[in-house]
Amino acid sequence: MVAVQINAERVLGDLYELRSIGSYKTGVHRPTLSAEDMVSRRWLVDKLNAFGHEASIDGIANVLGKTRAKGRKLLAGSHIESQNYAGWLDGALGIVYALEAARAVAATPELADTGIDVIAFADEEGHFGNFFGSYSFVGELEEDKIDAARDRTRGTPLRTALADAGLAGVPRVQMEPGRYSGFLEAHIEQGDWLEDQKLSVGIVTSIVSISQYRIVVEGTQNHAGTTRMAIRRDAGRTAVEICNALNEIFPKHAGERSVWTVGRITLEPGAPSIIPGRAEVMFQFRDADPAKLAELEEVLRKVVADADRNGPCDARVETVSRSIPAVMDDAIQDAFAKGGEEHCPGKYTRMPSGAGHDAQIIARHLPAGMLFVPSIGGISHHWTENTSDEDIVMGARVYASAAGHLLAGQ
Amino acid sequence: MVAVQINAERVLGDLYELRSIGSYKTGVHRPTLSAEDMVSRRWLVDKLNAFGHEASIDGIANVLGKTRAKGRKLLAGSHIESQNYAGWLDGALGIVYALEAARAVAATPELADTGIDVIAFADEEGHFGNFFGSYSFVGELEEDKIDAARDRTRGTPLRTALADAGLAGVPRVQMEPGRYSGFLEAHIEQGDWLEDQKLSVGIVTSIVSISQYRIVVEGTQNHAGTTRMAIRRDAGRTAVEICNALNEIFPKHAGERSVWTVGRITLEPGAPSIIPGRAEVMFQFRDADPAKLAELEEVLRKVVADADRNGPCDARVETVSRSIPAVMDDAIQDAFAKGGEEHCPGKYTRMPSGAGHDAQIIARHLPAGMLFVPSIGGISHHWTENTSDEDIVMGARVYASAAGHLLAGQ
Repeated sequence: MVAVQINAERVLGDLYELRSIGSYKTGVHRPTLSAEDMVSRRWLVDKLNAFGHEASIDGIANVLGKTRAKGRKLLAGSHIESQNYAGWLDGALGIVYALEAARAVAATPELADTGIDVIAFADEEGHFGNFFGSYSFVGELEEDKIDAARDRTRGTPLRTALADAGLAGVPRVQMEPGRYSGFLEAHIEQGDWLEDQKLSVGIVTSIVSISQYRIVVEGTQNHAGTTRMAIRRDAGRTAVEICNALNEIFPKHAGERSVWTVGRITLEPGAPSIIPGRAEVMFQFRDADPAKLAELEEVLRKVVADADRNGPCDARVETVSRSIPAVMDDAIQDAFAKGGEEHCPGKYTRMPSGAGHDAQIIARHLPAGMLFVPSIGGISHHWTENTSDEDIVMGARVYASAAGHLLAGQ
Repeated sequence: MVAVQINAERVLGDLYELRSIGSYKTGVHRPTLSAEDMVSRRWLVDKLNAFGHEASIDGIANVLGKTRAKGRKLLAGSHIESQNYAGWLDGALGIVYALEAARAVAATPELADTGIDVIAFADEEGHFGNFFGSYSFVGELEEDKIDAARDRTRGTPLRTALADAGLAGVPRVQMEPGRYSGFLEAHIEQGDWLEDQKLSVGIVTSIVSISQYRIVVEGTQNHAGTTRMAIRRDAGRTAVEICNALNEIFPKHAGERSVWTVGRITLEPGAPSIIPGRAEVMFQFRDADPAKLAELEEVLRKVVADADRNGPCDARVETVSRSIPAVMDDAIQDAFAKGGEEHCPGKYTRMPSGAGHDAQIIARHLPAGMLFVPSIGGISHHWTENTSDEDIVMGARVYASAAGHLLAGQ
């Protein structure tokens, strides 16, 4: 059986180098197409070229490093930019695992004919849009979406940011049909499940769907001093009652891993002495089971319809977005499990991903699989995000083993 | 008994003239120190000078029109600017009633020795601050407050706005000690009580206190997809639970006219896929009874302390402001009641004011009284704000009668 050997010090060393680009406290600030982001992309190009891959940055800022091997090939990677002032491993871990696996495979004589293309997708973190890098790679990103996109923090048009990064007029590279037998992505868990269960790696079974809604309540704006309680149509009060009802009823319908979140409540006009005439609640829930998602949506619609019927305000649900859960490939899951048996028997598990990842886009076109490593305290999207060196190295071993098995057809 | 005769057509005519300055739909847009606001102030100066008063605009934009009478004098007025794109009567009604009463008194031979000074306070609507006009007039507005103030809509510094209005360097006029035996202010009710009770005028007994609080909840910001419900410290959820608990428990403690309002809920960071790590709720309540206010504050503090103790988030109450109810003068209330008996027997009532008014500032220095007329549908701070012509005229009659009785010492 083929054994792909990784270099643990090189894995950690590469991650430390990436952390030094745009460092912020113990994390990084590398928003998409920022100067630091482009430095990190060129860093990856250099790393890939250094062992014989052909690497370049395309017109949406995806980095693709192609193996020269003629035989079976995998695609592997993640994203390289960060959220604003966020953690050092979110994205970067999956890049370095892919880089290390590609190097290790290239150095494995039994796999001489095979290879791994390494990809760093642009803007998985959504500074400008919604998985623009992976959508572009699979041929599902129209030019007019690029024309319309702006940086959510700075307002810079995406076209301007691309031009400033030297990418104006650079062609976008699409996936070559038939080139890959599968896609691998590693990522920090961003939750506390693995840590809580004292496990080293998680094999993703599916990436949950996010169902995102806007609950709109319409009442009557009025003076908060002169309007008696009995005649108020306070949209804020109704919105609060709806949120509370959802929190009370959802646990009765939720699956083991269902999550639901009120991310924002906007009362209009939002002044201390004015009864809100309008309220908006951003509400989302996630689950890997489409039947469960449908049930939760029914519960949401019933709660809001009841509020609307009971008055005094009008209330309705607007669907913002609804995705389909992305199922990970069984053979890739089994390859990760084989790697787990080899390196950390009893310390791996299968689990859904509560977060969205580029793998969910690629999974529509290729067999895809994801590997998670523990997040200390479940923290991510914050500069304190971390994973122990031991877990980082263990994850790289399992990942590279799985890649070896897949490439060897074992 | 002296009888002061108003001219109903002149009252309505003056109000229509004022409505034509900065008109917006059927309302007006005359924010403090805007070009339209200054036109309305000069309009008032001209009206006052026209019947022998000495009128001018001072350094904070208060208009003061002084009677030349040597005997007993009243101060009367309200504010003349409007909220943005708001109603035509809020403020203007009290200006025109004072103007008409001053003219009518000046034309009443039995009151030849007495008179009414008419005042239009600046910025009762709080574009720049908090009752700057009336505070200035009673000598309680420091220069550094003017230095620091900015227009809440446009951001213009108050100093700049004053200079643009030609008021830089113009002295601010303070109330002459001992000059007045009392202050009268008329206003639209801004609630629906008078309309609901089919009454023509309300005699204000006291102006309620506003107690304003900030409820701060601190939890842990985290990923809305990967963080299990069981370990979340969702500040937004706790904030919603607190708001709901307040709405459930306040009716058990509230007085007949207590009102409470959540004006704004801010969840941080306010993104759909991030569990809020911090929440702020702007909460206020109002009542005319200090004991009731103390009881409601105790209830508020208990609800928030319970939430804090029960976890999982930390919660606390911060006091933003707390005013003392302003009690209206008994003799002035009686004079209004006498006017009510003369003009609309059985159609007047005594009632607290749920809104704040300049009279609450002046009441600390002079006996003060307020008269309300009905607001159609209880609507104010909106361009649809209105009062029937019949009610407008009735209010003016009662108001001028009361002024006559007070000046005659009856």
